[in-house]
Amino acid sequence: MDSLKEKIINEGEAIGTEIVRVDGFLNHQIDVLFMEQLGKEFKKRFDNSGATKILTVEASGILVAGMTAKEFGNVPLVFAKKNAPNTMAEGFYQADVKSFTKGTVSTVRVAEKYLNSNDKVLIIDDFLAHGEAAIGLASLVEQAGGQVVGIGAVIEKEFQGGSRKLREKGYKVDSLAVIAKIENGIIEFR
Amino acid sequence: MDSLKEKIINEGEAIGTEIVRVDGFLNHQIDVLFMEQLGKEFKKRFDNSGATKILTVEASGILVAGMTAKEFGNVPLVFAKKNAPNTMAEGFYQADVKSFTKGTVSTVRVAEKYLNSNDKVLIIDDFLAHGEAAIGLASLVEQAGGQVVGIGAVIEKEFQGGSRKLREKGYKVDSLAVIAKIENGIIEFR
Repeated sequence: MDSLKEKIINEGEAIGTEIVRVDGFLNHQIDVLFMEQLGKEFKKRFDNSGATKILTVEASGILVAGMTAKEFGNVPLVFAKKNAPNTMAEGFYQADVKSFTKGTVSTVRVAEKYLNSNDKVLIIDDFLAHGEAAIGLASLVEQAGGQVVGIGAVIEKEFQGGSRKLREKGYKVDSLAVIAKIENGIIEFR
Repeated sequence: MDSLKEKIINEGEAIGTEIVRVDGFLNHQIDVLFMEQLGKEFKKRFDNSGATKILTVEASGILVAGMTAKEFGNVPLVFAKKNAPNTMAEGFYQADVKSFTKGTVSTVRVAEKYLNSNDKVLIIDDFLAHGEAAIGLASLVEQAGGQVVGIGAVIEKEFQGGSRKLREKGYKVDSLAVIAKIENGIIEFR
């Protein structure tokens, strides 16, 4: 998606060889109308997925996932939680997610009643790096007996291997901007 | 807002005398098209605020705040973070927020570059209870020298005193549904 690549080049910041910071329009300050455009693009790319639900994880993915849900019509968005809140007393599905960047493991959870065996779930997230978050989210869907009909990321860091890993597992993966390499402050797209 | 009150009655759950759980359309699973309606309603109520930025805190408020930003046109959304991520190296404004429900204190942060002295900020959140989160967010704006032009909540639990406290501080507060009392499983609106 060219407008996204331009925005990453113009507003993003390459840090070392692993990180691209897009705090100005995606991860902290959010360009809402641009997120709406991304939602339309996800709809186009997963138009035949038959998605009945959009799943993401808090927090940066929520708005773009919501805009995608909006394009699919009356499809609910579910966001997995990283902390078990006190109002989440009943059963939930959970999966551990390793963060290579932070060197931590967190647990993502969705209440059992919001995922079920009839669900065709499209997973949408802001970043696809090593694929750990997407694998965790897919596990939640599958624990419920549902089907993952696609995994979409706004920005994929291809060199971190997540999309390859996910495709080997049989998932349909599509990212709006695919970064092949980050080097000397330059972001190189596939 | 009658459609919201109906939804709270039909889909919400009263727990004890303090908590109303709306996980089915606001806090975990989200009814996206309904959030768009709430965004339009916030726009109506704060139409003359001159807001140049919408501020919320992760995670449940992000979608409704984003939909509000969308109605204001090309106005960015900023969401305060509860954890300092590793890609937030530069300076930030921060404030401590006490949670009466959880009995904890958390810190909310916004990077300095996303709030400044020209900003007229509308704060939007899912719940207004004791007002601590809104006071923390307002503090971030004021640390930057900006102006809080309004505080909007989807659901206000009036009996917990937040709106009174905020109005005493001079803020314009408007909530889409105001709960006066929760008792014996019944939610009573103002």
